[in-house]
Amino acid sequence: MRTPVQDYLKKMLDVARPNISGSRASYIPELRDATPDLLGMAICTIDGNIYSAGDDQEMFTIQSISKPFMYALALKDRGLDTVMETVGTEPSGEDFNELSLEGDTNRPMNPMINAGAIAVNQLINGEESTTEDRIALILEFMSDLAGRELEIDHGLCESEFAGADRNLSLAHMLRSYGIIKDTAHDAVFSYVQQCSILVNVRDLAVMGATLANGGVQPRTGKQVLKPEICRQVQSVMVSAGMYNGAGQWLFDVGIPAKSGVSGGILGTLPGQLGIATFSPRLDSKGNSVRGVRVFEQLSKDMGLHLMATEPFGGDALREITSDGYTTTIHVQGTLNFSAAEELLWEVLPRELPNERIIVDLTEVRRARVAGSRILLDGITALEESGADVAVYDPHFVLKTHEREDGTDIEIVDNLPVR
Amino acid sequence: MRTPVQDYLKKMLDVARPNISGSRASYIPELRDATPDLLGMAICTIDGNIYSAGDDQEMFTIQSISKPFMYALALKDRGLDTVMETVGTEPSGEDFNELSLEGDTNRPMNPMINAGAIAVNQLINGEESTTEDRIALILEFMSDLAGRELEIDHGLCESEFAGADRNLSLAHMLRSYGIIKDTAHDAVFSYVQQCSILVNVRDLAVMGATLANGGVQPRTGKQVLKPEICRQVQSVMVSAGMYNGAGQWLFDVGIPAKSGVSGGILGTLPGQLGIATFSPRLDSKGNSVRGVRVFEQLSKDMGLHLMATEPFGGDALREITSDGYTTTIHVQGTLNFSAAEELLWEVLPRELPNERIIVDLTEVRRARVAGSRILLDGITALEESGADVAVYDPHFVLKTHEREDGTDIEIVDNLPVR
Amino acid sequence: MRTPVQDYLKKMLDVARPNISGSRASYIPELRDATPDLLGMAICTIDGNIYSAGDDQEMFTIQSISKPFMYALALKDRGLDTVMETVGTEPSGEDFNELSLEGDTNRPMNPMINAGAIAVNQLINGEESTTEDRIALILEFMSDLAGRELEIDHGLCESEFAGADRNLSLAHMLRSYGIIKDTAHDAVFSYVQQCSILVNVRDLAVMGATLANGGVQPRTGKQVLKPEICRQVQSVMVSAGMYNGAGQWLFDVGIPAKSGVSGGILGTLPGQLGIATFSPRLDSKGNSVRGVRVFEQLSKDMGLHLMATEPFGGDALREITSDGYTTTIHVQGTLNFSAAEELLWEVLPRELPNERIIVDLTEVRRARVAGSRILLDGITALEESGADVAVYDPHFVLKTHEREDGTDIEIVDNLPVR
Amino acid sequence: MRTPVQDYLKKMLDVARPNISGSRASYIPELRDATPDLLGMAICTIDGNIYSAGDDQEMFTIQSISKPFMYALALKDRGLDTVMETVGTEPSGEDFNELSLEGDTNRPMNPMINAGAIAVNQLINGEESTTEDRIALILEFMSDLAGRELEIDHGLCESEFAGADRNLSLAHMLRSYGIIKDTAHDAVFSYVQQCSILVNVRDLAVMGATLANGGVQPRTGKQVLKPEICRQVQSVMVSAGMYNGAGQWLFDVGIPAKSGVSGGILGTLPGQLGIATFSPRLDSKGNSVRGVRVFEQLSKDMGLHLMATEPFGGDALREITSDGYTTTIHVQGTLNFSAAEELLWEVLPRELPNERIIVDLTEVRRARVAGSRILLDGITALEESGADVAVYDPHFVLKTHEREDGTDIEIVDNLPVR
Repeated sequence: MRTPVQDYLKKMLDVARPNISGSRASYIPELRDATPDLLGMAICTIDGNIYSAGDDQEMFTIQSISKPFMYALALKDRGLDTVMETVGTEPSGEDFNELSLEGDTNRPMNPMINAGAIAVNQLINGEESTTEDRIALILEFMSDLAGRELEIDHGLCESEFAGADRNLSLAHMLRSYGIIKDTAHDAVFSYVQQCSILVNVRDLAVMGATLANGGVQPRTGKQVLKPEICRQVQSVMVSAGMYNGAGQWLFDVGIPAKSGVSGGILGTLPGQLGIATFSPRLDSKGNSVRGVRVFEQLSKDMGLHLMATEPFGGDALREITSDGYTTTIHVQGTLNFSAAEELLWEVLPRELPNERIIVDLTEVRRARVAGSRILLDGITALEESGADVAVYDPHFVLKTHEREDGTDIEIVDNLPVR
Repeated sequence: MRTPVQDYLKKMLDVARPNISGSRASYIPELRDATPDLLGMAICTIDGNIYSAGDDQEMFTIQSISKPFMYALALKDRGLDTVMETVGTEPSGEDFNELSLEGDTNRPMNPMINAGAIAVNQLINGEESTTEDRIALILEFMSDLAGRELEIDHGLCESEFAGADRNLSLAHMLRSYGIIKDTAHDAVFSYVQQCSILVNVRDLAVMGATLANGGVQPRTGKQVLKPEICRQVQSVMVSAGMYNGAGQWLFDVGIPAKSGVSGGILGTLPGQLGIATFSPRLDSKGNSVRGVRVFEQLSKDMGLHLMATEPFGGDALREITSDGYTTTIHVQGTLNFSAAEELLWEVLPRELPNERIIVDLTEVRRARVAGSRILLDGITALEESGADVAVYDPHFVLKTHEREDGTDIEIVDNLPVR
Repeated sequence: MRTPVQDYLKKMLDVARPNISGSRASYIPELRDATPDLLGMAICTIDGNIYSAGDDQEMFTIQSISKPFMYALALKDRGLDTVMETVGTEPSGEDFNELSLEGDTNRPMNPMINAGAIAVNQLINGEESTTEDRIALILEFMSDLAGRELEIDHGLCESEFAGADRNLSLAHMLRSYGIIKDTAHDAVFSYVQQCSILVNVRDLAVMGATLANGGVQPRTGKQVLKPEICRQVQSVMVSAGMYNGAGQWLFDVGIPAKSGVSGGILGTLPGQLGIATFSPRLDSKGNSVRGVRVFEQLSKDMGLHLMATEPFGGDALREITSDGYTTTIHVQGTLNFSAAEELLWEVLPRELPNERIIVDLTEVRRARVAGSRILLDGITALEESGADVAVYDPHFVLKTHEREDGTDIEIVDNLPVR
Repeated sequence: MRTPVQDYLKKMLDVARPNISGSRASYIPELRDATPDLLGMAICTIDGNIYSAGDDQEMFTIQSISKPFMYALALKDRGLDTVMETVGTEPSGEDFNELSLEGDTNRPMNPMINAGAIAVNQLINGEESTTEDRIALILEFMSDLAGRELEIDHGLCESEFAGADRNLSLAHMLRSYGIIKDTAHDAVFSYVQQCSILVNVRDLAVMGATLANGGVQPRTGKQVLKPEICRQVQSVMVSAGMYNGAGQWLFDVGIPAKSGVSGGILGTLPGQLGIATFSPRLDSKGNSVRGVRVFEQLSKDMGLHLMATEPFGGDALREITSDGYTTTIHVQGTLNFSAAEELLWEVLPRELPNERIIVDLTEVRRARVAGSRILLDGITALEESGADVAVYDPHFVLKTHEREDGTDIEIVDNLPVR
């Protein structure tokens, strides 16, 4: 059966397709000779459903879109402290190839500018790693994110390296400040390989959905990254992802994003989606003209703006039933802070008919930290008012069963027969 | 009955209370003489539930926390185009009292630095407005946000004005560039009054919840602002709200925020909460030391980070029932993009037992634009596969009943008797 | 008789006159309505000879050309240490009305930008002075420099003040940093009066010649300033006098200079000349178009470039005569380092015919510190080789007669009869 | 016989010697291991007299002091236009190893920062030149300036290159902007060789004196550079020679200067002197501590400040004689603008006794452009008043004998018999 979401993607490409302004990156033959009219997009939900349209099978090099993923890998591989010593988190307000070192520490301002990305690349697998081992680890990680074996375009990689004066300049400067230790040649060669990994929009959408999904690859189910790393990476995408003009992009589009010179743009909506577009013609800032158009439309039409103020969550209380002996509170949906707060708001003031209360979590899909904590606190409050409360949690959604005073809540293995 | 959320707030204040570092603002006697140990906080949900703890009745002047609200009022009163001609949206990377004009337009960089805030103040009620009329409108708007009559601390206002050299400097410079037209004296006097509005943390939490709730004051139900303005204001709070170091705040805390020199901090979580803290001792950047601590804890403990990647939404399909003649698809919860997508993902592939299908929206609390659109497209898809579909929408949650081809979906007035 | 120098000035005006590009300052009516075709120039030698051509009697307000003179007055009135605490000496590379405060001290970068000039004005006559007393002292000083009573154009002064937003902005900022103490209103009013002093090019040329002449007004002979202050003022004119582009002006023209918005330019050649031009049309930097042209021509044609590498000085040894008993060394010209060094180079190796040697300084016009010192050291060297040396110094040109060992050289009252 | 000037140099070294603060450059072993207590200085007059004291034979690598000379060579070899396209003349206000490219042109700000110096080096002998040919030309030019064969310290050159990351960074960036065309490796290798030329303070003083002398090496008499190039080079030394703090150096010392990391400082006084000091310990800006002290003392004690306002020149009229038939005006000294003006000022108003006038230039040592022109104009003025004027110029000091109207003045071959 036809899926309306896919139709919707097609319509959005149709909106963007007439715009043939901009021009392809011209500094190497491979990008200069890209088919300019290519246009594709894909989205992947955190449940792993992929929708795509247009030239969704076209392979292109990932380029700068590798930066947030490498930042994630460095955080995973080396830890927050080491990474923070090497690169900052502030927007630079400058072009991607500016040096932008912080005055006191000489750290590159953030991992989304080239200086920062080269420094981050050198962290991966340890600074003593050979380039080969480092690239092998990178490829393995990126393949885990994509859910398939990715490859490097070695021909394009060679072209990139032949014209890599700016990156070599940055690498020498980083070396002179002691931020990287390998030779400038090897550091840039390693970075250029990271940029030459081949993907299509479906790959990128899945990879983005993994960030949006707290690090669980939504199709393979593999926990590739920890949730806090995904949070950190997407924070930097918001503040520094779209070069200068980060404030305007946040104001207009409001989707954490990263673009690449080959024409790709990756976006994520935390807890919701990965989004990817591809079209080679770039605007003066180096962002894909039609890709930006698609993201603007997506944000405007669909309300997919990070600051979208329409409420979500809610309706955690499915129903309250009683068999004369036991009151059962049936909870449903996702139990986050808002949902749990609302649940207690509705339950606590009521006169419940029996002293024995079962909180039934059968229909709860997931519980966040905040939701779990507030629910436990609410159970304690019920008990303090004289009730005898137990929880039925067949899917183990609660993060903990232990109260702050160290005692456990009562867990039951089945519901009262209805 | 004791509310666990309130307990939670008390615990957070206990975490922050021992930190007595920092010092009160010293440039006017009223702030210099504030009781340094005061500490209070409040949160307000988009459903209008307020929780507070500590010195939650203590009144203080709103100071720079007025800036996002005045930006909202200017957007409401004068429209996006006029406001964008006057002030930009980029982080300035500089202290709040820097001039930070954009090179080409002479616009102040953003409305969160003083130069931008003075320019925004002058837009309100038109540039020809008297200061009295402008302040009256401001007070009315702020009172609407708070849900009660707010007042100005005229004594403090006089003190502020007596030492207002930096703001007078900014105002004269803005005048010299033609960005404001009133005298520097009157522009600063008007701005200082806006800063001297008296609030407590409960007021601020409600005002923030109004932004988080798409402009609907959650206790009075009044639509004070349009949703897009709330989105825009919170976007600027993210990129420019916490002075320099915006990237680090987003990385660490991830809550749109604005602080004031009297010791307040306002935070919002779009679609969820308004949050306010108050404690007079400030760090070197001018942010309340204990307020920052509370926000960090809130973000860490409760996962209330904008980039929190734990998923939300979901479980839109409550159940599918059939009476032999009609299949009823019972939908529930909030119908956003993710929820609607998931609903169709579950429904479309099934072999439904009857040709007559009713989509029951009784249990749907709200539907976003994206959710409404995808649902309608899904209904069309069902019809194209041979079904006869109607919708039961007793609470009028759908944004539209009109398909893209101009035809309406069928609406029924009641469900089949079960 | 016709003076060739005056003819030369006329020729230079003829070179510049056809250039009618640029436009008058437009921010106040008095400047906007100036006769645009006016063109005049004057030079004054350190001997007090004035040459002028064109509209040399036209009065105009001195504007920013007052800045170097006020810096001189502040140095004279308050001393180097106080002035250096208040304002720096580095080029700002920015427009004249930028704030340009140094990061650590909040001092304005230099006294040639408005922020620095306002701060310098406030130093004069002490920070407790009334504006009236300060202006009276300023007028007295400027009149001493010009050699006649100068007056203030009070009408223009009022106009300037009415549109003084930028200067008021700077004054408020300086106040906020504690660099000035008077109200912003009074500080700017005092500064505007300083700028409204009426001069013509002949006045300016004489005032500049006073700087070039080590502070001695060359026509009245009055020592208005100490030599070191003149050296300091002209140093700052070189590094910061011509707004941004100081390096290019030094490269091309090489004359310490300061321009004003009414169309004047003042130049000085230390030890040689004061130069002034006047023509109201300004280029985009605010410098008189035809004035700049004249200075370029003057530098190119006449070699009047500070770095002109053609040698000067020399020929200090007029002749050596002997009457059989006494050898007389006849010295002439200006005795600077080079001249004295050359004198000794020629005298010391010679076998002089008698033991008694008289150094005749009758024809020596002036002796610098370095020249005096080297001459005394040379006399000592002659004595150490066995000669009996005395000096005839009828005009008292030597700075000292005391050797480093504390003994005096022998002075004779007349020369041997020839 | 003992020369007092040399004694004076010894005294100045004694003043600076006790200061043992600062530390040697540490980035390569050769500089790190320099004998820290070395201290020497030399001056050379434009007449070629050299005075030196202390460790005046100690050889050290010229380092950044090569920059002004290479700028001169590029101007000589490639012309002003080509050089100006490649590098600017504005102070950068930044450290020597900053990139400091101008925003619009990508030119390095000036030739005294490393980026500018590398670009200048690449201009020499044409951009197609081999490094070997370029270095051969550089060594030939530097040897011409020094008056002896200079050599490169190849060992130190290798050390420099091994740690040349910053310079390689600059070279790659210059390449990426198309400002240099050779490989970064070769460009930096060529630059490092230029910096590794071995000199002592006597060499440097002579090289500086050549700049001060309008390009004529004062000991060999060879015209190595044109006067205008010397003027341009010394202009850039003033505005950008002493890193950041150029304004302060000009204010305090007032001598065009350039320092090098091995401990040398070169100064020039146009038309007077070359000055060089050497002492390895550097201050935080990278300037020799004791060298700076010597220059300060030299400027203060001897009045050798560019803005020294004590007058020079003068006394051009030696005497006026008459034999009854002919009046002879005996001119003497250096005929610059001031001297010629003063001459005419004394001669023109007089009633000369005869119609036949001879201007005797026998005792004129040199005539500047301005002096020659004014003298010719004066002769024309005398003729217009009825005299019959001729010139006796046995040493050919006049720059021209042609008047502005194209006619020549009369030249006579001998003076009237006295």
